[in-house]
Amino acid sequence: MRWKLGGILIATMTVSALLTLWWQAPGAQAVPRETTAWQDEYRRPQEIPFPDQNPYSAEKAALGRMLFFDPIFSASRFISCASCHNPGLSWGDGRARAQGEGPSAMDLRSPTLLNDAWMPRLGWDGKFRDIESVAFAPITAAANMNLPEETLLARLAAIPGYVRAFAGVFGKEGITRHTIELALATYERTIVSQDAPFDRWIEGDADAIGPAAKRGFELFNGKARCAGCHSGWPFSDGSFHDIGTARDRDIGRGRIFPSSVKLKYAFKTPTLRDVARRAPYMHDGSVATLADVIDLYDRGGIDRPSRSELISPLGLSELEKADLIAFLETLSSPPHDVEVPTLPR
Amino acid sequence: MRWKLGGILIATMTVSALLTLWWQAPGAQAVPRETTAWQDEYRRPQEIPFPDQNPYSAEKAALGRMLFFDPIFSASRFISCASCHNPGLSWGDGRARAQGEGPSAMDLRSPTLLNDAWMPRLGWDGKFRDIESVAFAPITAAANMNLPEETLLARLAAIPGYVRAFAGVFGKEGITRHTIELALATYERTIVSQDAPFDRWIEGDADAIGPAAKRGFELFNGKARCAGCHSGWPFSDGSFHDIGTARDRDIGRGRIFPSSVKLKYAFKTPTLRDVARRAPYMHDGSVATLADVIDLYDRGGIDRPSRSELISPLGLSELEKADLIAFLETLSSPPHDVEVPTLPR
Repeated sequence: MRWKLGGILIATMTVSALLTLWWQAPGAQAVPRETTAWQDEYRRPQEIPFPDQNPYSAEKAALGRMLFFDPIFSASRFISCASCHNPGLSWGDGRARAQGEGPSAMDLRSPTLLNDAWMPRLGWDGKFRDIESVAFAPITAAANMNLPEETLLARLAAIPGYVRAFAGVFGKEGITRHTIELALATYERTIVSQDAPFDRWIEGDADAIGPAAKRGFELFNGKARCAGCHSGWPFSDGSFHDIGTARDRDIGRGRIFPSSVKLKYAFKTPTLRDVARRAPYMHDGSVATLADVIDLYDRGGIDRPSRSELISPLGLSELEKADLIAFLETLSSPPHDVEVPTLPR
Repeated sequence: MRWKLGGILIATMTVSALLTLWWQAPGAQAVPRETTAWQDEYRRPQEIPFPDQNPYSAEKAALGRMLFFDPIFSASRFISCASCHNPGLSWGDGRARAQGEGPSAMDLRSPTLLNDAWMPRLGWDGKFRDIESVAFAPITAAANMNLPEETLLARLAAIPGYVRAFAGVFGKEGITRHTIELALATYERTIVSQDAPFDRWIEGDADAIGPAAKRGFELFNGKARCAGCHSGWPFSDGSFHDIGTARDRDIGRGRIFPSSVKLKYAFKTPTLRDVARRAPYMHDGSVATLADVIDLYDRGGIDRPSRSELISPLGLSELEKADLIAFLETLSSPPHDVEVPTLPR
């Protein structure tokens, strides 16, 4: 079952219809001819994919949204899913490492939830096969939300508004771990990056991004080799790579596949949507700015058997680095408000 | 300078215009004749009062809203004003005691921000003379957001979006403690309780609340003596009373006026708007449910010189207690979404 990306769908269709005309129009501002080949790869999808086992319904998404913003999901009643996946910060938290109920920060950065509907696996090490299976990991982890499943179920069952909402969506199954997972996952699939200047450019508006960004896009797909992993419209292949930075016991997906040479130090490729406003960077928040990220890739990282073949010194000029950043900035949507619900009490 | 309560204004005027007709209509469902006397006292205002020293502007409120939701206002970059004043929980936090950066909870409950624009003094002990003067107390307090003023100013000054926004609103004064206070206070004054069934009843819709709630309103203003302190449309006199519950060193406004007999153990009368969804109750969150609150007042509290003259055993029947709760529930607005902004980064 799929859910139409309302206005986006219409905008996409309209611009697509005009594109052929525009493409042949004499005097249209130059877009590199080879950009046409990228349009199919980078065009925003028209629908969010929902799995057959958990189809979309507006009521389920609305219930999931309430759960997502409700701090009774933490032992302290202070932290909600939205605390670490803050809609005001493109669904991340702006910190180097995630904070939870524990006294110290966690080992990894809170990932953005943008476009998780398209991710084949979830988590920096990919240990979750789908969004449904992620939900309870942060809820029950002591360092994170620290709430036993039975406590959560009891808290929800004590709130008539939740009892009614679960009955309305799930019938007599009511409030269970399973239905909480289904509702949360349905809402989280609706967390999709908004239309950005890059999207308008891909759809044919030659002036939607500037010359530096256009050069940066060429570099991104060429000399800088970014697109090898940051591919497709969410700018992530959803896969796992050692980019030559993690060390020691921070082995990422290597923990799950200890015999794999290539998965040691491999972490999930994050989406680059809204990336310019999602500092600090990397799975451990160890890099402060986009310029530092570019420098890191330019140096090429630790040379070792697990390192991706795409990673080696790039020899980028200062202008090329600036162009790459100019391109990455075109992936940010304009500021927009996110509506948070009144919580049942 | 005042800011019209948009839709509310229109709704109020329309209903008011019809009220005279309705009031004389034969066969209209009975509302106690004496309710007319209460209409002026309990009618929602048409405008938010903004002080001359800090007049409303849409740009200032929008900037204040960003500051309010931004977690860089805490040392950890994890807690924003909205963490303790959560729009999903009627601008409180649903906890007995406020949580902050400190390892343990604070001494007092996070108060709702609803209708603070009408409060003559802020804080459970009233130590703040206006909203502007509140802002930095939680920001800099070690147990709360724990952020030195200079660190906050440096963080904001490092974000171009904030530099532009402050310059746009405050000109060359830019980012200062003073301008942060002005912006936050302007936004917070716009946090106003939404239209509730009680408001529709006061405006003449006889069926907007049920018979139990109507009886409860009579009790509220009569035998139960609630309206002596919970007066006016926000259901608070904005003043300070010992209701006979605080003990020991928890002396509230007595700390500020140590020679006053009546202010020992006196705390600010909170608004009752949305009260049914703002458990737990009292300044220290020590009472779990509205039924427990009613029982507490029914018992009359500790007999001592500071205790309010309005507090003594009430002799309420179980039906009367239920009626009071039915009335209090009519002060909750229907669920509505609150928009949170994308934060500058």
